[in-house]
Amino acid sequence: MNTLSNTLPQQVSIREVGLRDGLQSISAIMPTERKLAWLRGAYDAGQREIEVGSFVPARLLPQLADTAELVAFAKTLPGLVTSVLMPNLKGAERAIESGADLMLLPISASHAHSLANLRKTPDEVVEEIGRIRAARDASGSAMLLEVGMSTAFGCTLQGRVEPAEVLRLLQAVLDAGADRVGLADTVGYADPAMVRELFEAAFKVAGDRLACGHFHDTRGMGIANVYAALQTGVTRFDACLAGIGGCPHAPGASGNVASEDLAYMFASMGIATGIDFDKLMALRTKVAGWLEGETLHGTLWRSGLPKTMLAATA
Amino acid sequence: MNTLSNTLPQQVSIREVGLRDGLQSISAIMPTERKLAWLRGAYDAGQREIEVGSFVPARLLPQLADTAELVAFAKTLPGLVTSVLMPNLKGAERAIESGADLMLLPISASHAHSLANLRKTPDEVVEEIGRIRAARDASGSAMLLEVGMSTAFGCTLQGRVEPAEVLRLLQAVLDAGADRVGLADTVGYADPAMVRELFEAAFKVAGDRLACGHFHDTRGMGIANVYAALQTGVTRFDACLAGIGGCPHAPGASGNVASEDLAYMFASMGIATGIDFDKLMALRTKVAGWLEGETLHGTLWRSGLPKTMLAATA
Repeated sequence: MNTLSNTLPQQVSIREVGLRDGLQSISAIMPTERKLAWLRGAYDAGQREIEVGSFVPARLLPQLADTAELVAFAKTLPGLVTSVLMPNLKGAERAIESGADLMLLPISASHAHSLANLRKTPDEVVEEIGRIRAARDASGSAMLLEVGMSTAFGCTLQGRVEPAEVLRLLQAVLDAGADRVGLADTVGYADPAMVRELFEAAFKVAGDRLACGHFHDTRGMGIANVYAALQTGVTRFDACLAGIGGCPHAPGASGNVASEDLAYMFASMGIATGIDFDKLMALRTKVAGWLEGETLHGTLWRSGLPKTMLAATA
Repeated sequence: MNTLSNTLPQQVSIREVGLRDGLQSISAIMPTERKLAWLRGAYDAGQREIEVGSFVPARLLPQLADTAELVAFAKTLPGLVTSVLMPNLKGAERAIESGADLMLLPISASHAHSLANLRKTPDEVVEEIGRIRAARDASGSAMLLEVGMSTAFGCTLQGRVEPAEVLRLLQAVLDAGADRVGLADTVGYADPAMVRELFEAAFKVAGDRLACGHFHDTRGMGIANVYAALQTGVTRFDACLAGIGGCPHAPGASGNVASEDLAYMFASMGIATGIDFDKLMALRTKVAGWLEGETLHGTLWRSGLPKTMLAATA
């Protein structure tokens, strides 16, 4: 393929990951009632897929110890796709039990990162995916099993990550039983040309099971990378309200792309997301108040919508 | 045309506009010796086109009163293309006299903005371009006459700006004698889809005389818009060190895209800019010290280069 279509999708979805990926790197524990209010506010603003937490041992990540409670509340909201992260079979068992709609397992394409973070090689994680798939099937659950390939564009430990290795692992992950896969630039190393190239190649491996782009804005490329992925056919993106989450390797730098900036870009391009901008910005203000002292990101909160869009929202 | 080429240019140029577009909206006057040091530092970092000031009456813009002095110094730097702004024939006469290589005249595609800022309609500005071209030719100068079409993607006063009007004015500007034209999103209203569409149409009108993309990052779209323009064939972009300049309509919001972030994107994509990254970042640190109290922008200064690029820079 040596051309890109000029036709962009008419509709995309933004999975809000602020309650998990965002809060995970914030040490002050947010009370459950605030998380529930955030969840409710995101739902009211039109967000229809939300990652509410992670099934990891509470002693390792006390911030996310109330995940089951959040899932229970999320299930009361009609039409909401509730997503949870889990690092292994044990977490998957809790995820299945919780009744969430989707469980996300991260796998690192970087061997160095995989060993440092999980003490497993990527291929050992692939084996775990097989066990998780078997457990899911045995449980009779209809829960989706998504695998997010982190450090797909490079790694702070290892440096370069070979695209061929990403594609090999992608195939292995699908063979092991993942329903969906996504590519993640968890360290902000990607540029739009890399994104285009890797996603085009990944679509050839995974087809429409390639269903998520996860970009960090560490080096200012987050939005551009989303646009590049969009051009290859990606229609689902992770984002964090106020770009929270940061990057442990770059203090003060942005984490995930900001949900509100992403929602603005799509709205400006006439691509539907279902998000009510005014409500999302009001929620941002509220959450920002709860996160006083944390470095927040995003641009829209400061500049507001352009005059051309003020009448067009809602 | 319904496809975009996957082939990106191998080389692009970044015109540094911090000394004019950036400083213009900063009230504390930077002493001439610091501006000269900035100019020298930018040159040493490999920047080969620099907008050094504006020929407007000093009482209107005291910050840029030393423009002639900066041009004189810039002319001593071999291979540097010295660019100056001028608002009218009077300014053009001073620009020609200064011996700069390129004079840039802004024209606003928004009638409301044109009337409010210049008390002229865009078509009256087109007539002025004809007079400037005649004066340039009569002087025997080889100076380039470039016209930058501001508010090409929307306007804070008028709201929507019709692409058809932008294209009509572009043709009129070329007919009046401009050597080059550029499109500018001076208020940060553009999104990548708008950029792609308007630049593709503008190339049909102007061919290779369309030679500049000028994007502000007011709503976080700056880098994505550069990428979208790059895909249509634009190979020359304006940028400001540290993203200075801001936006009078959005206090604290970013102005022009940050030169260092743009240079990083191009370097990451393997597109040559001639910029020495370490030197540019050292210059940023120096200039940031001079601008204490001003809101600066950009991301690279915080996050640094990715590990994959640390060995690759020169």
